[in-house]
Amino acid sequence: MREELETELALVSDLLVAMAAAVRSAMRTATTALLTADRSAADAVVTGDAEVNDLRSRVEDRVYATTARQAPVASDLRALFTALHMAADLERMGDLAKHVAQIAQRSHPEPAVPTELSELFSQMGQVADQVAGKITQVLSEADSRGAAQLDHDDDAMDRLHRDLLGLLLDPSRSYSTQTAIDAALLGRFYERYADHAVNAGRQVVFLVTGKPVSG
Amino acid sequence: MREELETELALVSDLLVAMAAAVRSAMRTATTALLTADRSAADAVVTGDAEVNDLRSRVEDRVYATTARQAPVASDLRALFTALHMAADLERMGDLAKHVAQIAQRSHPEPAVPTELSELFSQMGQVADQVAGKITQVLSEADSRGAAQLDHDDDAMDRLHRDLLGLLLDPSRSYSTQTAIDAALLGRFYERYADHAVNAGRQVVFLVTGKPVSG
Repeated sequence: MREELETELALVSDLLVAMAAAVRSAMRTATTALLTADRSAADAVVTGDAEVNDLRSRVEDRVYATTARQAPVASDLRALFTALHMAADLERMGDLAKHVAQIAQRSHPEPAVPTELSELFSQMGQVADQVAGKITQVLSEADSRGAAQLDHDDDAMDRLHRDLLGLLLDPSRSYSTQTAIDAALLGRFYERYADHAVNAGRQVVFLVTGKPVSG
Repeated sequence: MREELETELALVSDLLVAMAAAVRSAMRTATTALLTADRSAADAVVTGDAEVNDLRSRVEDRVYATTARQAPVASDLRALFTALHMAADLERMGDLAKHVAQIAQRSHPEPAVPTELSELFSQMGQVADQVAGKITQVLSEADSRGAAQLDHDDDAMDRLHRDLLGLLLDPSRSYSTQTAIDAALLGRFYERYADHAVNAGRQVVFLVTGKPVSG
């Protein structure tokens, strides 16, 4: 019984690692699609989101089946519930990558982001990639140290988000309404992506150490 | 044991009803704050969101404790897991009402929405209210009929959202960048609110009938 439960927990953890890798790759590809007006990259992200959703369903089904069959004790049950939370955050990160790709799709063949904003979005993409990478690292190495930097990355994203709004509202620049709307939504998508990544990272720490992360 | 479990399930259901009522009221107040530049209404929504988050924590704690103590059978366990999903959607609806209120706060004493867009946002507020009201109704009456109209309401919201983007991008009108950004974000918040309400409604139907809603 105990061995079976360990196997189930390991399988759930593998699914979460796969989800984290998938949503990291999705946002990386979405950023490329956005900055290079690459239609096929954008299409790939939009199509690929179904896989992320499918992985989440598999996490939920396994957690449900394991709980029903094995009546796990407190710490195992807590791990299973934490996995549900993580899967929800990771699925949402996949959705956000898809939203970025959809903006790239809609403006194609024009780039959605004007040249003078592309450096900022490139940085947002890099921070998103870092923060998503830490989840995978912490999950697969069961090492909570990397997660300590998650808040730092999130602060970096918030700063970039504020810079973006400052540029958009700078009266000396003049963007079209479409550009302003797209850029504001994109800024929000990246910022939310990092937020969910930080949440997911906190949950890994909780899973690994049994202690909630403060803040 | 069975009786204790029934009591727990009823308590979880009461918490969900309280959450649904709270997030409905939050969006109603947020819409008022938005359309009348009412600062104290906006403040109340922002402050009140902590209560919604607290209700969600209580749902999670109860579901966890009940699962740990009672090792519920399949159908009860399914109901408990469904409650977790609903609580997540309802909490997100509360967040979205808060985001609407925050835009009203930031632009105060100026209204965030120009007069010519206020009718549209008033309609979005009405649809949001309808769709949130149905969750409460279905939950508290354990009657799935109202939920059948959820998709219809969601379609109405999507139409309003498209109309809004059409107006914002209409070259014969000219909105400031701040107005365009705020209106685009607000449109998204209302649309997401309705989306989560439809999800939550579907889960109630599943809870009541044991059958997933198609589509």
